[in-house]
Amino acid sequence: MDAGTPTTGAPGPHHDGSALYVPEGTPALGDTVPVRVRVPRGRSGPAVRDVWLRTVRDGEPRLSPARLDRSDEHEDWYVAEVLVHNPETSYRFFLDTPGADGSSGYRWLNGRGTWDRDVPDAADFRLTVHDPAPAWMSDGVVYQVFPDRFARSAAADGRALPDWAVPAAWGDEPHGSGPDVGTQYYGGDLTGIEEHLDHLVALGVSTLYTTPVFPGRSNHRYDASTFDRVDPLLGGDAAYASLIRAAHARGLRVMGDLTTNHTGAGHEWFTRAVGRPDAPERDFYYWTEGQPGYVGWLEHASLPKLSYGSAELAARMIDGPDSVVGRYLRAPYGLDGWRIDVANMTGRHGAEDRTLEVARTLRATMAAIDPDAALVAEHFHDASGDLAGDGWHANMNYSAFTRPVWTWLSPADSPVPYLGLPVRTPRRGGRSVVETMRDFDAVVPWRVTASQWNMLGSHDTPRLRSIVGSRELVEVAATLLLTYPGTPVVFAGDEVGLTGINGEHARATMPWDEPDRRDAATFEVYRSLIGVRRASAALLSGGLRWVHVDDDVLVYLRETADERVLVAVARAPWSGVRLHPAVVGAAREAERLHGDLDLDTPDGAWRLAADGPAVGVWRLR
Amino acid sequence: MDAGTPTTGAPGPHHDGSALYVPEGTPALGDTVPVRVRVPRGRSGPAVRDVWLRTVRDGEPRLSPARLDRSDEHEDWYVAEVLVHNPETSYRFFLDTPGADGSSGYRWLNGRGTWDRDVPDAADFRLTVHDPAPAWMSDGVVYQVFPDRFARSAAADGRALPDWAVPAAWGDEPHGSGPDVGTQYYGGDLTGIEEHLDHLVALGVSTLYTTPVFPGRSNHRYDASTFDRVDPLLGGDAAYASLIRAAHARGLRVMGDLTTNHTGAGHEWFTRAVGRPDAPERDFYYWTEGQPGYVGWLEHASLPKLSYGSAELAARMIDGPDSVVGRYLRAPYGLDGWRIDVANMTGRHGAEDRTLEVARTLRATMAAIDPDAALVAEHFHDASGDLAGDGWHANMNYSAFTRPVWTWLSPADSPVPYLGLPVRTPRRGGRSVVETMRDFDAVVPWRVTASQWNMLGSHDTPRLRSIVGSRELVEVAATLLLTYPGTPVVFAGDEVGLTGINGEHARATMPWDEPDRRDAATFEVYRSLIGVRRASAALLSGGLRWVHVDDDVLVYLRETADERVLVAVARAPWSGVRLHPAVVGAAREAERLHGDLDLDTPDGAWRLAADGPAVGVWRLR
Repeated sequence: MDAGTPTTGAPGPHHDGSALYVPEGTPALGDTVPVRVRVPRGRSGPAVRDVWLRTVRDGEPRLSPARLDRSDEHEDWYVAEVLVHNPETSYRFFLDTPGADGSSGYRWLNGRGTWDRDVPDAADFRLTVHDPAPAWMSDGVVYQVFPDRFARSAAADGRALPDWAVPAAWGDEPHGSGPDVGTQYYGGDLTGIEEHLDHLVALGVSTLYTTPVFPGRSNHRYDASTFDRVDPLLGGDAAYASLIRAAHARGLRVMGDLTTNHTGAGHEWFTRAVGRPDAPERDFYYWTEGQPGYVGWLEHASLPKLSYGSAELAARMIDGPDSVVGRYLRAPYGLDGWRIDVANMTGRHGAEDRTLEVARTLRATMAAIDPDAALVAEHFHDASGDLAGDGWHANMNYSAFTRPVWTWLSPADSPVPYLGLPVRTPRRGGRSVVETMRDFDAVVPWRVTASQWNMLGSHDTPRLRSIVGSRELVEVAATLLLTYPGTPVVFAGDEVGLTGINGEHARATMPWDEPDRRDAATFEVYRSLIGVRRASAALLSGGLRWVHVDDDVLVYLRETADERVLVAVARAPWSGVRLHPAVVGAAREAERLHGDLDLDTPDGAWRLAADGPAVGVWRLR
Repeated sequence: MDAGTPTTGAPGPHHDGSALYVPEGTPALGDTVPVRVRVPRGRSGPAVRDVWLRTVRDGEPRLSPARLDRSDEHEDWYVAEVLVHNPETSYRFFLDTPGADGSSGYRWLNGRGTWDRDVPDAADFRLTVHDPAPAWMSDGVVYQVFPDRFARSAAADGRALPDWAVPAAWGDEPHGSGPDVGTQYYGGDLTGIEEHLDHLVALGVSTLYTTPVFPGRSNHRYDASTFDRVDPLLGGDAAYASLIRAAHARGLRVMGDLTTNHTGAGHEWFTRAVGRPDAPERDFYYWTEGQPGYVGWLEHASLPKLSYGSAELAARMIDGPDSVVGRYLRAPYGLDGWRIDVANMTGRHGAEDRTLEVARTLRATMAAIDPDAALVAEHFHDASGDLAGDGWHANMNYSAFTRPVWTWLSPADSPVPYLGLPVRTPRRGGRSVVETMRDFDAVVPWRVTASQWNMLGSHDTPRLRSIVGSRELVEVAATLLLTYPGTPVVFAGDEVGLTGINGEHARATMPWDEPDRRDAATFEVYRSLIGVRRASAALLSGGLRWVHVDDDVLVYLRETADERVLVAVARAPWSGVRLHPAVVGAAREAERLHGDLDLDTPDGAWRLAADGPAVGVWRLR
């Protein structure tokens, strides 16, 4: 790096929903909440003459003046009062920014940044009267286990092979396509998971999330044949209760996975409904003319869709302590929350849309049993319409996190199919990637963003290692995962470098006894980053300010009132950059928390080195 | 213009909801609708290898292949099938666009244009099963009259001045501020309007819209004291029936204006409710502790807000043929539609949100009496949440039209306050302006955009002439108004050059007998443009493609299968431009429909001259 190294701009005006800007706690209807915004002083950006708050009340925007609260060398802090008049009250800031010649000008500040023109309301900030997800979820890290592939206890050897299963040996590579992707059977079980909880503890995760444990006719068990008992192939009810008990004893939470959208065609409800037109379960499904005679999830006859117009279905499935949802939160199980499969479609069919009703009922059932239970929706796309916060607490955040990160770190000539689209994974520049993240983050309340399940992959996607192609880029991705707002989720095996080019192929078994399949260096990267995150309030719950974004590098701050963490991730060699003094503020020292990227301050100016792939995480003091 | 004149780019991939791309008619649930998209061929843009349709069905996106339908020298047309599975079915296009080196790449095409990254769903195209506004609305032009200021019949001289009124002489300039802005009384009446219907016919408009005609205690009458009769100060019920009859006889439609959100504090319902706690009207309002004891619109004690939790209120106001909404659509009146005041707030209060319910009820009441009745909402801001099309047909389009046009044509040193914001009107460049228009257009279905009430001002805003500062720029604005998708609305007096620096000041009287206040050249501009529009199917209902957008100039095409109209508007001298051959396509000749801007074709290349302010409208043959 030489004297020609560019300097970042000063950070722009900023607000987010973190405690630096919005008091903690859930407001009630009628409360007034002071919200703060920071605005660069004249030398660091266009001069702001005045700041106003715009809220929308009963559908009508109103402006009210913000008051200058404090100033330092680089920025002014304003404060304004939001009256929480509606359950979801949106707001943004109006920055009176006249031209140098005195001409009229203003900018809006919303969740996507500043705009020197009028913009629709979708990306406005918002306060809601709905409690956010329990803090334990985003205060920790979730570890996702696909039971058939995680660990096989000795008891598994004694179980008869089910009729649908195609047996595989533990070290076999899963098939990525073909007729048996759903029936290749490795025989992992719940006792196997319990036997390996020390691995989770060593990694530093806090929550075990398993994909379904109810019996089905597949290795994934998303085609439940009953919700009344845990699959005997996994060890049955006792093994599940034991696993949860053992996890709790180690301070781990456990979340289950429920298919509220459909059952298997072999489900006892469906069998009764088909067999007897007067069966009480008849109304649980959508019956149609023609084959197969009912609505299936994505037209799969094996997965008949559930109809929440039936109060009896709601009672059995989601409503009340004796429903499926309630039962497994209670003794002898004590699940800590549910991940809801296909949540985006649950309750939706044609002119009928009961999704919000289902989510609210589910949430109420859970809250009545355990006010600290967590409810997470599966939705691969734009979930903003379902995430006001009164139903699902959060979402599997493919849109705002997983996919943009993949496209930043994918090689241009990737052979890996891009999830859900008929192309291979494309490579995009950092600016495009961050715009995507901001676009999708901005359409949900901050408290949802701060709880979202951020993933680098799941049982439904290619493995990160196969997408990015190198251990170094896995570290770049993992650094993003563990320093970004939300709840990091690690798909079991990612931390030891497993590969896979699609969701089925990615369901590789854990290489407990196969050192060749196990990347210890990657484990160490994850372990370090998880530890760093869990020890930093700023990383767990701080605000997010983008400092520098270019094709090959992303630099941002995570901040609380007491802590500032600087994160820099580079996917390739880049130009290096000096940090604008306003980025650093009063900091005099940078404590390295993770990574090797150089941050030096030889002449008072803070400079990030041009290396890449490389990462750095520092606490600024 | 010399050889250095730049050439526009080729038009990008395009789709909108007009008949070139989507068959006319309202689909039913379950219908399959073929939708078309045009994509530049390789030489005119990045090479598209393949096109897919993405629809969202029950919350889940699905891709299906589009089929190449036809090609010409410049572009490929693809067609794909949208299954209308939900009442509002959204879709967009996936353009497989590999890099020149074979790397993976794609773009999305949505209502805001193309994106080389993932974007949320808000700007997706959509089909709905809801009937659009009646064609008569957007096939014509609406003329807005503020009764107190339009024309005074001889009968007015015989009427006693009401106690609240501060009399003004017809030629007096209205006060723009001060205690009497609402009480300055000029005495215009309905008979006066009837006497001047020939003016509307000469101008070429097709619909008369009057602000409220019910009695109140103000010149604007948005504070009704009853809905049971027309204000005697305006001539009463007989004058209203006579006006509507006379308008119909001339082929004009008539729309009324209803305050569903509130009444005046002098309203007979409110008086009864205050006086008698057991009055049936007690539940019509929101009662509170403290002063004034009830909820008023924007806290105005003079305008108590109505509560649609009351079925009795709904029955009196909006539900059924005998409701206020229904009664004036029937004999002896026969109104053709309603504009709903403060529609954005109607039915919304705190945790209660009945806006959609109110809109649907209103719509059903009207449709039962007159399937061809029109229902337009007032909303100054982002109305997308209320415009799916099953309630209000359309909206007063301040956001997507009025405000962006103002900011394009305002001088940088405008003295005119910018509506609703604490700054003077800013001046923005064309790109920013068009982005704003596209942003707000894209969040409502095309059939709503195609009916929206586009205005250059209203009784609530400064006058166009005062905002833009010159007759030439009024012509630029009027050309946009009369060539843009939607329903043009002319605020009476704009066509003769009236001025006004805010909504109250803009309520100037029509200068029937004052030649000094009457700009005949502006009238001729409006008359010409209205005539051009009404004779052109492309301008009335064609698609919209942006051809060239720069700070000082906007160029676009309006197109049907049989007609193409090119529009160019320049606010100032500019560089001029050659049109890319793909813009012109097979056209050999341009028939000038309006304006003076030069379009010449001396050497086969079509060139727009660098003049400005200037406008041109041509039919390409």
